[in-house]
Amino acid sequence: MTRGKFIAFEGGEGCGKSTQAKMLAAWLDRNGKEVILTREPGGTPRAEAIRSLLLDPPEGSWLPEAEALLFAAARSDHVGQLILPALERGTWVVCDRFVDSSRAYQGYAGKLGDEAINQLHEFGSAGLLPDLTLLLEVDAASAASRATARDRGKADAIGGRDDAYHAGVAAGFKAITQRDPERFRTIDGSGSPDEVHDRIVAAVAPLTKGTH
Amino acid sequence: MTRGKFIAFEGGEGCGKSTQAKMLAAWLDRNGKEVILTREPGGTPRAEAIRSLLLDPPEGSWLPEAEALLFAAARSDHVGQLILPALERGTWVVCDRFVDSSRAYQGYAGKLGDEAINQLHEFGSAGLLPDLTLLLEVDAASAASRATARDRGKADAIGGRDDAYHAGVAAGFKAITQRDPERFRTIDGSGSPDEVHDRIVAAVAPLTKGTH
Repeated sequence: MTRGKFIAFEGGEGCGKSTQAKMLAAWLDRNGKEVILTREPGGTPRAEAIRSLLLDPPEGSWLPEAEALLFAAARSDHVGQLILPALERGTWVVCDRFVDSSRAYQGYAGKLGDEAINQLHEFGSAGLLPDLTLLLEVDAASAASRATARDRGKADAIGGRDDAYHAGVAAGFKAITQRDPERFRTIDGSGSPDEVHDRIVAAVAPLTKGTH
Repeated sequence: MTRGKFIAFEGGEGCGKSTQAKMLAAWLDRNGKEVILTREPGGTPRAEAIRSLLLDPPEGSWLPEAEALLFAAARSDHVGQLILPALERGTWVVCDRFVDSSRAYQGYAGKLGDEAINQLHEFGSAGLLPDLTLLLEVDAASAASRATARDRGKADAIGGRDDAYHAGVAAGFKAITQRDPERFRTIDGSGSPDEVHDRIVAAVAPLTKGTH
């Protein structure tokens, strides 16, 4: 049994990740792969319950450390109970956000440090990394207008943070890709969804060879 | 301003912690201390929401790592938003369970190891430890009968684990007190609540001198 491939989408708010993750999963399915489309935080019933606490805290807001621990807890459930079993039975997994979001948001923008986030990931999920991580890049103005249209003025507790925070996220993603260039492909997210999808398929296609 | 003292109660299921924590807080109040009575997991609105996920998981059960991360997240909120601010303004804090429960339950009985739990605590709560930790010890048969009476056949996801797990918890508490004998007082939990309370007051009284 060949192990499935694990592909994650990353990027800031409004960069088109969810749309593209869906389009890629459909493309893999059309090309004969068993595939699961999932997302973080969430992806399992228990992790989705943690997602609700993160994006809509019961009162006030989480301290950065508590937030990072909750993301790691949700990911631990998601990896242990959904992602790893799928990969092991040969299913491909396409995930909308994974640990690099925690690194960019809580580690860089939230100033907890990359090392701390990686240690939580090592503890909670045995440090599992995607086979390929697609970082979608769009200019800040298009991202803001897409996120605003999507949220209709009701951004969640994390998406709704200030511009300085989101600039920190973007800088964090840049730093992370430079630390691990083999695993990342930076994808130009400008243009129509189909145009972006074509760029993604070009990056993913090499992985599909010889995995039947 | 003298910093408040932080006193935690520890022990297995049905050892009388909650009753004794309440009685100690009332005693401190009668003796002129500002005091907060709180509990773990929980103690703040956000941490209580995590408590619900821990004790009554949405579906199935948490993996040990996810469980430990959730406890650390709840504690981070509790320490950062309730316990530390209280201690800093001179208020005493009496807490029903704290990090030593995570060490005994998830670290020892759950086999994640003491070091891993301590690292999560260092990350989430800057390693805060109580000034005094009271470990209530009762024989296994009395504890089981008290826990059964309290739970009326509906033990939570952790209290309801098997005897081997709870034996691991007891062994864990013993190992922890031996590693840090200065901080712990082991209290004989047998006899009436008033008898146990008198033993606890004898252990706590020395801390109340000169803290007005």
